Amino acid sequence: MKKTSFLLSIVLYTFTLTAQNEALEVKNIFDHALKSDVAYNQLKWLCENTAGRICGTPEAAAAVEYMRQEMLKMDLDTVYLQSCMVKNWKRGEPEKAYILSKKMGRIEVPVSALGLSIGTGKDGLLAKIVEVSSFKEMELLGKNKIEGKIVFFNKPMDPTLINTFSAYGGAAGLRTGGASEAAKYGAIGVVVRSLTLASDDHPHTGVMQYQDSEKKIPAIMISTNAADLLSSSIKKESDLEFYFRTTCQTYADVPSNNVIGEIRGTKYPDQIITIGGHLDAWDTGQGAHDDGGGCVQSIEVLRLFLELDIKPNFTIRAVMFMDEEVAQRGGQKYAEMADQNHENHVMAIELDRGVLVPRAVAFSNYDKDNAKHRKIAELLTPYNINIIKGGGGVDIGPLKQYYPNIIFGDLVTDDQRYFDFHHSGNDRFEHVNKRELQLGAATIASLIYLIDHLGVE
Amino acid sequence: MKKTSFLLSIVLYTFTLTAQNEALEVKNIFDHALKSDVAYNQLKWLCENTAGRICGTPEAAAAVEYMRQEMLKMDLDTVYLQSCMVKNWKRGEPEKAYILSKKMGRIEVPVSALGLSIGTGKDGLLAKIVEVSSFKEMELLGKNKIEGKIVFFNKPMDPTLINTFSAYGGAAGLRTGGASEAAKYGAIGVVVRSLTLASDDHPHTGVMQYQDSEKKIPAIMISTNAADLLSSSIKKESDLEFYFRTTCQTYADVPSNNVIGEIRGTKYPDQIITIGGHLDAWDTGQGAHDDGGGCVQSIEVLRLFLELDIKPNFTIRAVMFMDEEVAQRGGQKYAEMADQNHENHVMAIELDRGVLVPRAVAFSNYDKDNAKHRKIAELLTPYNINIIKGGGGVDIGPLKQYYPNIIFGDLVTDDQRYFDFHHSGNDRFEHVNKRELQLGAATIASLIYLIDHLGVE
Repeated sequence: MKKTSFLLSIVLYTFTLTAQNEALEVKNIFDHALKSDVAYNQLKWLCENTAGRICGTPEAAAAVEYMRQEMLKMDLDTVYLQSCMVKNWKRGEPEKAYILSKKMGRIEVPVSALGLSIGTGKDGLLAKIVEVSSFKEMELLGKNKIEGKIVFFNKPMDPTLINTFSAYGGAAGLRTGGASEAAKYGAIGVVVRSLTLASDDHPHTGVMQYQDSEKKIPAIMISTNAADLLSSSIKKESDLEFYFRTTCQTYADVPSNNVIGEIRGTKYPDQIITIGGHLDAWDTGQGAHDDGGGCVQSIEVLRLFLELDIKPNFTIRAVMFMDEEVAQRGGQKYAEMADQNHENHVMAIELDRGVLVPRAVAFSNYDKDNAKHRKIAELLTPYNINIIKGGGGVDIGPLKQYYPNIIFGDLVTDDQRYFDFHHSGNDRFEHVNKRELQLGAATIASLIYLIDHLGVE
Repeated sequence: MKKTSFLLSIVLYTFTLTAQNEALEVKNIFDHALKSDVAYNQLKWLCENTAGRICGTPEAAAAVEYMRQEMLKMDLDTVYLQSCMVKNWKRGEPEKAYILSKKMGRIEVPVSALGLSIGTGKDGLLAKIVEVSSFKEMELLGKNKIEGKIVFFNKPMDPTLINTFSAYGGAAGLRTGGASEAAKYGAIGVVVRSLTLASDDHPHTGVMQYQDSEKKIPAIMISTNAADLLSSSIKKESDLEFYFRTTCQTYADVPSNNVIGEIRGTKYPDQIITIGGHLDAWDTGQGAHDDGGGCVQSIEVLRLFLELDIKPNFTIRAVMFMDEEVAQRGGQKYAEMADQNHENHVMAIELDRGVLVPRAVAFSNYDKDNAKHRKIAELLTPYNINIIKGGGGVDIGPLKQYYPNIIFGDLVTDDQRYFDFHHSGNDRFEHVNKRELQLGAATIASLIYLIDHLGVE
């Protein structure tokens, strides 16, 4: 009896000690992260020297080489490039657009061609413009009200949704699918209201897709302020005209790379936890929030492990994906190669929600009754980090078809400001706060440390 | 039996209906807030037209009149000014400061005189400079190492503290008390490292106090980048000299005002819930985060009540306090007048933690087992708002002596970026996000609606 109780004491003592050690290591990770400016300076370099790094550009190539060099400087077990063919769409000459009003004359407006859109040709398009807020509304107007005209999709993101990603999701279909839908009714071009909750003068760009069955017509985004002006002008003048000129074009695919670095696991070297962001960014900004931040945070996780001499049980791999914004070729290639190389992927986390203060971590298999999840939640509480169900992303998503049991994770940031920057000229380094960057990195490093330590189910 | 069960059903039904109604009203408040730009435009006006509104200035007077007019436009029951005498410290001519190095020559650095500091006189001060990070370190150096010199207090805010207000609290004593402490050892002036976690070129100012027993010596803040330069220069050159010139001065007190507006309670008109911010702001910036935002949010609470036709049981009063930054005279006056007028104050909330995304509401009497508090927490969960113990502030604090049972509340914002702006030229309207402003206002409006509805204990 005495012996049992002594043993029990030892077990309890060890358990408490372990919990204390884990709390101390998490504090260590946060302390070191909050005192470091390595990732912040990497992001600064990336923003200042590779702005405009949409896939297929020299800037994207420079970003690949910079990230490779940064990881080579570290004491990682492996650093390599993973080649993939990527889309090669070029914006061409700066866009030109104006409202042509009988009353007010010509009013120039800020617009941006949509990724993968065809151009208007050098003369541009001049036509009457008709405003709708949905495909349904366009259908009600019908072909005879639309044929030969430019369609203006003016649907603001819903400001009453607390989750701004939901507000984005509710309006993004007009951007991605608007051109082909409008082409069905004989439209000759489309103008789409920028996807942002801010009233600003930046066109917020993004990718679009054509349906093979429809005629391809050119598509542009217009800033929210200009969209409001255009809308009020149409109300005052029903036969208002609009002009735009774009010379963008999709060329043949070109080679590019994912950039990969890893710390080999001591216990399960063949089991891989991936943490990644995307290195390509829209050519109109610096790609600070979307997604230079996610890239440098991924490397920062490895740097913190090395600095704190945390030797992981699992292999921890940072991946900077290429071509997320246009065709997600990097993510597809990563999954294909994983399968081809017979790798074993147990978990993947994609960081692509802006360099903003972290509010939660998410697991695809989150269960509030799971003791490990409860423990992780408890250990992250002092850092104001919650735990929720979620996870995934377009770059890590393709892994699922090869590894159906893979666990996806996520860093849930406070997204209120995110769409002020997203896909616009406003996505610049000056809008990143160092602490918010480092808190995000520390949260993910702590999460991976805890998962690695407690085991992946 | 049947009758009882029928009555019980009615009671339960009513209870559920009430809970649903409360949830609906909270949603209404958030929806209306997130669609409005009234408070945002008020803040814009305040920032653009009354920048520099430290108490005693014409800008402060203009801010008082603007806020009064804005409230007069609304359908409030009462709008009035509450006069109070305020401190009248003036910065004088722009400060001048440089490091004088034998090796590098003269290097100009950005500095800002501290509020209530005396000036150097027109010739300025030139002397050897000695660096310390604490009063203890100064004591160890002793009089013969300090006499006749300028003391440089170089203690960075601790970046590892997750709560940045705690990091501020840990270093602010050098700013408020440094001059008199250094005077004890014969120092002739003090230079204090700016209280910010950012590496920037803005001096972050603030108030200081002299001890009556000590000789008054001039005090300035230096930007963090310049503090780092100064520190490394001292390490290289032990007899480095420093020059600064300030012409600031404290003049006789002048009259100013708190600005007050209220909606009279329908059931308990004599019982008052106060919600307020401070209208004065440091003269080096626009006072957007500190605390124009708190002022317009306070008015926004009343505006939302009027717009949604919420008729409160208690009297809801918005107060824009004067002279928070220097001597908190407005807050003292408000409490004195409350007592003098035999008012009954049941609750007070001070909004002075920056216009940043809300993370929690706080009560001084928070109790997790309190059913009302649990209900409030539950109703605010969809808006990512937590509930914690806390509350209070320097403007509402004086109420406590007259109303010992008063409940204090608070809006806990995400403070990671706050000290990037605090008391500096960087506290500008462009750094305020409309959604974060409105989410804060909606949170407080919802909280007051729920407290008013559920009753104050």
